[in-house]
Amino acid sequence: MAKKNKPLRPKARLPKGLRDVEADEIRALNNLLADIGETYALYGFEPLDTPAFEYSDVLGKFLPDQERPNAGVFSFEDEDDQWVSLRYDLTAPLARFVAQNYDRLPKPFRRFQSGNVWRNEKPGPGRYRQFMQFDADTVGTVSLAADAELCMLAAESLERCGIAVGSYTIRVNNRKLLDGILETIGIVAGNDAYDNQRLTILRAIDKLDRLGEEGVRHLLGEGRKDESGDYTKGAGLEPKHIDAVMAYVTSARSDQNLLSALANLVKDSEIGEQGVRELEQIETLVRSAGFADNQIAIDPSVVRGLDYYTGPVFEAELSMQTKNEKGQPVSFGSVGGGGRYDGLVARFKGVEVPATGFSFGVSRLLAAVSQLDERGSLSVGPVIVLVMDQEYLPDYQRLTRRLRQAGIATEMYLGTSGMRAQMKYADKRNAPCVVIQGEDERQKNEVTIKDLVEGARLSEVIEDNVTWREGRPAQFSVSENELIEAVERVLENSNT
Amino acid sequence: MAKKNKPLRPKARLPKGLRDVEADEIRALNNLLADIGETYALYGFEPLDTPAFEYSDVLGKFLPDQERPNAGVFSFEDEDDQWVSLRYDLTAPLARFVAQNYDRLPKPFRRFQSGNVWRNEKPGPGRYRQFMQFDADTVGTVSLAADAELCMLAAESLERCGIAVGSYTIRVNNRKLLDGILETIGIVAGNDAYDNQRLTILRAIDKLDRLGEEGVRHLLGEGRKDESGDYTKGAGLEPKHIDAVMAYVTSARSDQNLLSALANLVKDSEIGEQGVRELEQIETLVRSAGFADNQIAIDPSVVRGLDYYTGPVFEAELSMQTKNEKGQPVSFGSVGGGGRYDGLVARFKGVEVPATGFSFGVSRLLAAVSQLDERGSLSVGPVIVLVMDQEYLPDYQRLTRRLRQAGIATEMYLGTSGMRAQMKYADKRNAPCVVIQGEDERQKNEVTIKDLVEGARLSEVIEDNVTWREGRPAQFSVSENELIEAVERVLENSNT
Repeated sequence: MAKKNKPLRPKARLPKGLRDVEADEIRALNNLLADIGETYALYGFEPLDTPAFEYSDVLGKFLPDQERPNAGVFSFEDEDDQWVSLRYDLTAPLARFVAQNYDRLPKPFRRFQSGNVWRNEKPGPGRYRQFMQFDADTVGTVSLAADAELCMLAAESLERCGIAVGSYTIRVNNRKLLDGILETIGIVAGNDAYDNQRLTILRAIDKLDRLGEEGVRHLLGEGRKDESGDYTKGAGLEPKHIDAVMAYVTSARSDQNLLSALANLVKDSEIGEQGVRELEQIETLVRSAGFADNQIAIDPSVVRGLDYYTGPVFEAELSMQTKNEKGQPVSFGSVGGGGRYDGLVARFKGVEVPATGFSFGVSRLLAAVSQLDERGSLSVGPVIVLVMDQEYLPDYQRLTRRLRQAGIATEMYLGTSGMRAQMKYADKRNAPCVVIQGEDERQKNEVTIKDLVEGARLSEVIEDNVTWREGRPAQFSVSENELIEAVERVLENSNT
Repeated sequence: MAKKNKPLRPKARLPKGLRDVEADEIRALNNLLADIGETYALYGFEPLDTPAFEYSDVLGKFLPDQERPNAGVFSFEDEDDQWVSLRYDLTAPLARFVAQNYDRLPKPFRRFQSGNVWRNEKPGPGRYRQFMQFDADTVGTVSLAADAELCMLAAESLERCGIAVGSYTIRVNNRKLLDGILETIGIVAGNDAYDNQRLTILRAIDKLDRLGEEGVRHLLGEGRKDESGDYTKGAGLEPKHIDAVMAYVTSARSDQNLLSALANLVKDSEIGEQGVRELEQIETLVRSAGFADNQIAIDPSVVRGLDYYTGPVFEAELSMQTKNEKGQPVSFGSVGGGGRYDGLVARFKGVEVPATGFSFGVSRLLAAVSQLDERGSLSVGPVIVLVMDQEYLPDYQRLTRRLRQAGIATEMYLGTSGMRAQMKYADKRNAPCVVIQGEDERQKNEVTIKDLVEGARLSEVIEDNVTWREGRPAQFSVSENELIEAVERVLENSNT
């Protein structure tokens, strides 16, 4: 739409990367959110809801030396010429909330929040500009028990959503281990190039699942050209250092002595040894709580792509099979993750406030759960009371109301079309049955109930059209007084 | 924050007119949304969720001859220089959705949607820039049964939310009646000034509750100066025409013969008579369904301020008492409304698609419900397992997990402070009890449970500090095996 020549009639369309969510998906989503929310509450987390937009500087989305916020967020200026941005995650608003209300909050502060976030990034298949996250965070404690609890919380949430033990793993690692490895090969904090090189290494390792060992090796070294011909510059490590990093990353997670093997790899680095001790502590806690290593497991290949994590990092991975865009079977992969971050609240307060969090990508998880359980898509619609004669609308309204008062989702047909269109409508709404009262029934104080589920089944069995019409299967009349009972009987059958 | 000199440490604050919603309010809100959603589903409405922003022209927020959207909405340009705006209601996105998906939707199409909307308007006490609406709409039928159903839906939703019969009224009117009155006094469509004058009259009548008859008379005539000295220009009607309008508006809603009285007032106007017939039909339908006139009532003073309504209009009013900003008792007033609008989808499709809808203002309704039911604010927090010795963290974790597996919301204290701070934390979290295992208990495989609810009660009764300490009331030890049972007993008592 040009700004100058606005057409008289706008085209009904959505902005790029946005979509509508319709009834069946909303019902499945609500079940999922309830399952996760109940689990979070069981763990003592309290709900919080922050608004959709915040000052851009508060979200940390003001680029240094620039007059506009980061292009990755949706931003606009308010009436006082201050930039505000739609939230791109739920962690930055939490940091603002904690800093703003620090004195009155219980410490540690444990909250959960679910809600949409918005990213001004290139949309693609399954990648939208509005999507939902479900986060739990514990703010204000250095205790690793807080991290251990998040791993348990993630495991228990997945199980409550219907993902069985054996189909998922909460993978745990610690950034300090990688820092230990880097220290042993001479890459140490303080060096000018350190931050950039470390982030490049983190991102390379984060691609292990997708690119395999060979691909990661290229990214740790000179760089890598992908299938499309795009070139990604590497971290520039020497071959023997690449070997050291890869030896760490590919340490078998099935190894009974994984922790001592890791301790051996970082044995000259204090930070590395601290990382091993922290992992050990988390493992002891989750095992004490009864979680086995097919639920929560230490895995050195987990690093997470974000640079703000300072210690433990987690990732919730589903091993169940699914198909990729090319139709090839692949393992489902990550549906969430998190870790410890100690700097976010410090941005406001000047002093570090230790924190750790976990976030589910709700759409990814919903896709996984829907794949497991197809029932959600077969939802039964309302009972439809047909309108045989507009003159008797009050009677149909009365019947409708009686069904609703019995707790049966019901609607009276509200259009003005005839019988045929009404039956088509009932079909489109997935109605289990329709209630009919024509002249004949009215005189006898009866109603006819047409069972659409049974009807559809019988129409597959009975091939003879004449037999079908004459027998009128799945259709019967009862007195008005028996309406509720008869409809309930049909509903029971349609659910079996 | 100046754009040039960005401070190193941003201030933790929210943009004007926005707020955080915390745990107790979220729990009450979720109950309310569940009650309304279940009622809407019982009436056969299906959920829909549209995204937070849309193209500005789609929302109808592009002002003619201007290069920017209306200042009342929050807008920004996307990467293709197209203006998008945060939705300011849920009706405009519905119109877009219906126009976009018209062919495949069942007709009539009945959907409900709840969600935040955003308005770039001056915030004030209780007026925020982000707030929630809960809408139900039926699109694609001229049948007045659709309007009647919305009135019943509103009534039944309020009752399910805990608003008793007698404390609310769904007031129904029809715009065509007012148009009939205007016709009888010579203000007819087609006249150049008609639209503006009609809207001024509508808005004047809409202020009857607040300004009283005298105030409305001024606004129908020359104009009115309010307490602050601001002057509002009036509709410029002659005194005898003001009398005619006021006679209509103040027609007693208790009058048994209201409909014939109204018919008499508009007797020379075809549109007016049509309005009376439509009201009659709606009344017949709601009475047939069993709703009495202390639930749904015809009320000529309801007009609604928006100009897009074309026929029936409704308003949900609570008669329960509350206090205004000055602390004076006032009746609670409107918590929602709606009506028939036939032009919204036509904006896209060129042909009129008749539609009717009802919308609850969720915050207003929540305020009313919370006033009735104070229980929401007394929510019980999780059981807290104290950490007496960091060395035994795994043991505390095991106890915590056992309680959770029994479905009891529990957290292990995750901070690193001592006993005193932990008790203070438990208090702040509204914990019903704490679970303690010190050296003594550990050796005997026991736990001590401290009942905080009973403890608080006893501390009010026992004044002698020594008696208190020695008696250690509301504190008892049980073997670890009896933990669940003992905590459940405490929870039962704390709920009574």
